[in-house]
Amino acid sequence: MACWARFRSHDDRSGFGVLDGVRLTQYQGDLFDSPQPNGVTLERGDYELQSPCMPSKIVALWNNFNALAEKLGKKAPAHALFLIKSGTSVIGPGVPIRRPSGYQGKIVFEGELGIVIRRRCKDVAPGDAGDYIFGYTCVNDVTAADVLNENGDFPQWCRSKGYDTFGCVGPVIETDFDWPRARVTTMLDGVERQNYPLSDMIISPVDLVSQISHDLTLLPGDIIACGTSLGVGSIRDGATVEVRIEGIGSLINTLAPR
Amino acid sequence: MACWARFRSHDDRSGFGVLDGVRLTQYQGDLFDSPQPNGVTLERGDYELQSPCMPSKIVALWNNFNALAEKLGKKAPAHALFLIKSGTSVIGPGVPIRRPSGYQGKIVFEGELGIVIRRRCKDVAPGDAGDYIFGYTCVNDVTAADVLNENGDFPQWCRSKGYDTFGCVGPVIETDFDWPRARVTTMLDGVERQNYPLSDMIISPVDLVSQISHDLTLLPGDIIACGTSLGVGSIRDGATVEVRIEGIGSLINTLAPR
Repeated sequence: MACWARFRSHDDRSGFGVLDGVRLTQYQGDLFDSPQPNGVTLERGDYELQSPCMPSKIVALWNNFNALAEKLGKKAPAHALFLIKSGTSVIGPGVPIRRPSGYQGKIVFEGELGIVIRRRCKDVAPGDAGDYIFGYTCVNDVTAADVLNENGDFPQWCRSKGYDTFGCVGPVIETDFDWPRARVTTMLDGVERQNYPLSDMIISPVDLVSQISHDLTLLPGDIIACGTSLGVGSIRDGATVEVRIEGIGSLINTLAPR
Repeated sequence: MACWARFRSHDDRSGFGVLDGVRLTQYQGDLFDSPQPNGVTLERGDYELQSPCMPSKIVALWNNFNALAEKLGKKAPAHALFLIKSGTSVIGPGVPIRRPSGYQGKIVFEGELGIVIRRRCKDVAPGDAGDYIFGYTCVNDVTAADVLNENGDFPQWCRSKGYDTFGCVGPVIETDFDWPRARVTTMLDGVERQNYPLSDMIISPVDLVSQISHDLTLLPGDIIACGTSLGVGSIRDGATVEVRIEGIGSLINTLAPR
């Protein structure tokens, strides 16, 4: 089991390593290809965590939990339904979510499990897909809800979910994670708003990786956000969202006050 | 005026440079940041062109030409309507378009103008947006048309247009291009199928760059595909599509025979 994190140290060095509690053992090389420890350890207070990887894209699922599908009256899809969040939307733990300039509307949180891709992945069979998963992280898939259906002719999934800072990822990547036993809990200013079992997922992580790898090539560090379930809600300016997955950690981001 | 291209030479070196007819003057450094000639020139037969840049994403417009909007009975949008094609969809001139594995349906061409971004671009005013445009290229925005509406609950824009090889780009980036005077012509196996004036564009290049830069950060080499107009059609296996824009060049790709 390893829990990987990227950091910026207080003397302004960036790097990555294995987090054990609050002690961070730095590694060098390529996070996804046999990195080696470099002998440096950092203690609590020496560093701040960044997003644990820098995806070229987030493939974000729609309608992938039975409970939410039932509530919305939607059929379970046979193939993963997704949009792409640009890599430029990604922020790490503790970084403020920013309201888009000129946008006065509703901003919505969605707590989700994120699958982090280990290596270039194309046309992979479900039975092999596990080898392409590096680990798991928490995602807050933020949406400018009033933009989504602002134009009646064209649902603006990529725009409403792709704003800079709308892809919250972290705090770490856990390589040894037993997803079917875990729950996603989302807290808004300390009040529980989502609490759903990952076992309710319609298309499982290995099937997601396999299906999506037949649609487009996944690259090391790319993230598949597995979709959300019941309890999605809006974030007031200044409010804090915590996406907590036992076995991974807590991803905390505040919507910057106006 | 300069016409930039990326190449692979027949002795297997990659690089980029300025194309003058068929002679290619190689440059080194960063294409988007003061590259310098390195004294090497390549003649016809020494090299093959690749996609002239490697975008992290293609921002692909929907409903951005008046003639097509009228035909479809759609109102002109006030803000750019777009989806994101993954950077992994990109191929250069001469590279075959590949039918997705297991997909038997219709594959459609769309000839388009592509705007290539020069430098990191966020919240840019229309009056400043020209400084962020490096140049223009041709795009064939390929779509697996039967995937788009395969699921009645969710239009699959990113999936149907995001398959590997579905983002044809090239042959070059032209830095001095008078877009309002040019036309996009698309030939299918030598027969003209599209021929539309860029002056019919609803949201102009500088307004596209400005608007989209308020939605998400554009990176050097990113492409905005300006949308298509009348004459879109399907490509039989083995057929060749040529997207031709006078002042830029001809982008030719064949749908690989089954």
